[in-house]
Amino acid sequence: MGFKVAIVGATGAVGVEFLKVLERRNFPVDELVLLASKRSAGTTLEFKGKTHMVTELTHGSFAGCHLALFSAGASVSRAYRESCVAAGCLMVDNSSAFRMEAGVPLVVPEVNPQQARKALRSQGGAGVIANPNCTTIIALLALNPLHRAVPIKRVVAATYQAASGAGHAAMEELLNSTRAYLDGKPYEPKVLPFPYAFNLFPHNSPMTASGYCEEELKLAKESVKILDDPSVKITGTCVRVPVLRTHAEALNIEFTRELSVERAYELLGKAPGVTVLEDRARNRWPMPVDVAGKDDVYVGRLRKDHTQDNTLDVWVVGDQLLKGAALNAVQCAEAALLG
Amino acid sequence: MGFKVAIVGATGAVGVEFLKVLERRNFPVDELVLLASKRSAGTTLEFKGKTHMVTELTHGSFAGCHLALFSAGASVSRAYRESCVAAGCLMVDNSSAFRMEAGVPLVVPEVNPQQARKALRSQGGAGVIANPNCTTIIALLALNPLHRAVPIKRVVAATYQAASGAGHAAMEELLNSTRAYLDGKPYEPKVLPFPYAFNLFPHNSPMTASGYCEEELKLAKESVKILDDPSVKITGTCVRVPVLRTHAEALNIEFTRELSVERAYELLGKAPGVTVLEDRARNRWPMPVDVAGKDDVYVGRLRKDHTQDNTLDVWVVGDQLLKGAALNAVQCAEAALLG
Repeated sequence: MGFKVAIVGATGAVGVEFLKVLERRNFPVDELVLLASKRSAGTTLEFKGKTHMVTELTHGSFAGCHLALFSAGASVSRAYRESCVAAGCLMVDNSSAFRMEAGVPLVVPEVNPQQARKALRSQGGAGVIANPNCTTIIALLALNPLHRAVPIKRVVAATYQAASGAGHAAMEELLNSTRAYLDGKPYEPKVLPFPYAFNLFPHNSPMTASGYCEEELKLAKESVKILDDPSVKITGTCVRVPVLRTHAEALNIEFTRELSVERAYELLGKAPGVTVLEDRARNRWPMPVDVAGKDDVYVGRLRKDHTQDNTLDVWVVGDQLLKGAALNAVQCAEAALLG
Repeated sequence: MGFKVAIVGATGAVGVEFLKVLERRNFPVDELVLLASKRSAGTTLEFKGKTHMVTELTHGSFAGCHLALFSAGASVSRAYRESCVAAGCLMVDNSSAFRMEAGVPLVVPEVNPQQARKALRSQGGAGVIANPNCTTIIALLALNPLHRAVPIKRVVAATYQAASGAGHAAMEELLNSTRAYLDGKPYEPKVLPFPYAFNLFPHNSPMTASGYCEEELKLAKESVKILDDPSVKITGTCVRVPVLRTHAEALNIEFTRELSVERAYELLGKAPGVTVLEDRARNRWPMPVDVAGKDDVYVGRLRKDHTQDNTLDVWVVGDQLLKGAALNAVQCAEAALLG
């Protein structure tokens, strides 16, 4: 009664997490097909105590597969979508390729799990579920429970984003360039466009004519699609900070009417996938080191903004590789195939 | 025609910058008195090619001094204010001790230079100029020129604050804990309350009943005092990031009427103390590595916020030890004594 599961981009930062999440959640995997570029073929990875060989991704790779988890960039997703879906395999795609495509559900299982099943071809769907951008998922875990109680009007977000969002090589670059800095040696950035050691920079996604980068626009547009509510407006500044795998976000949230701090804590306290962590007396709130490797998105520092009516400030921290990527994708697959 | 100048906290991160700034700006120093705690007495520091001995701060230290630059924490400032002022010495204080005291001018020379002279006892002043909080100064260099053209209604700020704001020992802790992390060794935080290597945390200033920390409230209250305009409302989230000496701030600014991006660039382009740095094609904006050691506050990424009328997003980066502390203090002294 299990599934034949393909992982595309198996050797990447998210690929490795796919395996860990599938194993930890005991997802019913009967057969595993690890796929990557020709360069990475031949690598071996462990899954449930067995060694698996990574093979080169080809259009024939999906034969007999029920599920393919993609995390190899938008161009690979575009190039292999047809082969995957034609083989009758559900594609859960971690790239930005199809997120805004009408007919492709964009799913955060805590928010719109019903959309996951609509992706199935047997249900008339396109055979693809898009996994939202990491920053969007992490924000929505906190925003959705509040929005369901009192509709959100506008959010001003500022993000503190980790290296992992740019892949394993960017995490290595952060470590290597930091070591070079400490050793007084020069380091030429190879993966990210700017120096990263003890530095930060506005997010390196492509710039748009609006002056907002794509990462900032994704947060706004994807949130509207997932919440299925065009009245929610989000602006913000996305920043890459020298942290390895956990994003933090400062959210200033204006509601359509009053929502008390107490009620907001209550809503977040019982929201699935959310942990409220704070110790006001010690000024101790969620930090990347708390949340790295954790499934839940951590929230805290709820406070009433006295500069505007009906407004709260909230602090949110989530593991970029887990809830921001691999975990959410596996949860999407669960909602579609096991739901 | 020069001055006898005392530096209180001469061996600290800001103290060392006081000396460099005085020398670089050719401030007319006839005699220099370097003061610190008993523990640091006996240390020597260079100024204009001469070696000066640091002596222990006592109530008699200010005899004959015209100017004392203080950066040794609020309790030292409180304890020595009277001795300093009674000696006829102008106190320029980098601590938070007197910032909100009525009668003590809180000065950013690009904003309210006329206030600096009002501090002089010969002008009927209290003999003290308060240097604002670093985050406030850096924000105001960008906010003031815009506010003078079109009044600001509300700002949502998120900060990315460097180690230097917590002093030299915090900078050392960032370096040492990061090296320990890279070497796989444990590190127990000694200066800051939380792990700092590849981590970040909401600002470690004291928490208030509102849920906002003092750093966040300083930004709001000090800005109103310096702009002399209670209609300007500022909320925000202050965060300590693993960067050595340069603060960055994401400011979402709502104006009372429209201010175009083009006009805002024009205003900032001619504002004193401000450098506009950006290369939109390369997605290249001010970063801490650009601004460390620079006098100017760097701004960029001006963009029209489409989620709300009359609103712009702006990115601001400033050296915490220079414009955020030592440089601003010396400029205050210049405005009072040389203006």
